[in-house]
Amino acid sequence: MPHIKLPEGLHGIRSAMAFRPEVAKPLNELVQVLLHDENSLTAGARELIATYVSHLNDCYYCQTIHGAIAAANLNGDEELVKRVKADFQHADISEKLKALLIIAAKVQKGGKNVTAEDVGNAKSLGATDLEIHDTVLISAAFCMYNRYVDGLATTQPEDEALYRERGKQVAELGYVSASKIYLKEHAVAK
Amino acid sequence: MPHIKLPEGLHGIRSAMAFRPEVAKPLNELVQVLLHDENSLTAGARELIATYVSHLNDCYYCQTIHGAIAAANLNGDEELVKRVKADFQHADISEKLKALLIIAAKVQKGGKNVTAEDVGNAKSLGATDLEIHDTVLISAAFCMYNRYVDGLATTQPEDEALYRERGKQVAELGYVSASKIYLKEHAVAK
Repeated sequence: MPHIKLPEGLHGIRSAMAFRPEVAKPLNELVQVLLHDENSLTAGARELIATYVSHLNDCYYCQTIHGAIAAANLNGDEELVKRVKADFQHADISEKLKALLIIAAKVQKGGKNVTAEDVGNAKSLGATDLEIHDTVLISAAFCMYNRYVDGLATTQPEDEALYRERGKQVAELGYVSASKIYLKEHAVAK
Repeated sequence: MPHIKLPEGLHGIRSAMAFRPEVAKPLNELVQVLLHDENSLTAGARELIATYVSHLNDCYYCQTIHGAIAAANLNGDEELVKRVKADFQHADISEKLKALLIIAAKVQKGGKNVTAEDVGNAKSLGATDLEIHDTVLISAAFCMYNRYVDGLATTQPEDEALYRERGKQVAELGYVSASKIYLKEHAVAK
């Protein structure tokens, strides 16, 4: 049961955002820029970073929905998403993305853990300054989203089909538009 | 030295935001709602929560600037800010704020650490659902901002007078306006 009275029938971060629309706006805009808007890193790669960090933070809701969005961006390859969470060094992803996942994992533990060597390694594999910046901020941002979702003890349904459906929608439309549709479907007054 | 090429002459989160204005907008808007806009919790109390979490995350830049903004909101009482960081249970703050700081500290370690008892205790001391929500999100958000600032190894000057000056400006004008002035002063385009 959530720690505070959140709108019923909504789950995870959506219930918290419906409770406090003033923060929902920047929270949606941030994730839209980081994970959906045009970028030299594919949406699939960025969603894998978000999923991996959410897995490290043990947030069921976030790792499941972002895993679903990642899969939707990767031709439905749910096995790849599971492999990245369990053992990304042996997953079928680029060496550059592996180097970025190492940086993301360091940030998850605390920003000071990132070393010049970690960054140098990513750069030597082709990562740009912007890609390194975005990796650091994606990891940092999911240290926020994960804590927000779990810190309020939001409800988190265990039916993977729900996440799969929603994942396809977000992958297609982006966060800001999908969020509006979701609130309309659930008839939450703003 | 920062891990990536950030604009020179800027420090801490300001240098990272100037590098990536697309994320600066939602990041500024989020902190504006959480710490500056009207709320039943005073700006001073909210800045103390942000300062305390940044202290727990060992982020020099964030704990110093938010400590300065807190002090500016608390009649310049820098001693109170120091006391809250070192031992808030014996600081001259309300029992309700102490209960909220306990929740913030739990969130800093991970969202699942917050218990129904922690929340019940804060409620029994007068905390509303919105105040509990905002406490959770302030702590979560500073787990992001702190990691962003340190994960990029931004420069963080040690001259406290700089932070004090800037703290007064932010306390007065808010984050969105102060950020625009700062970028203009430092002649950063955008």
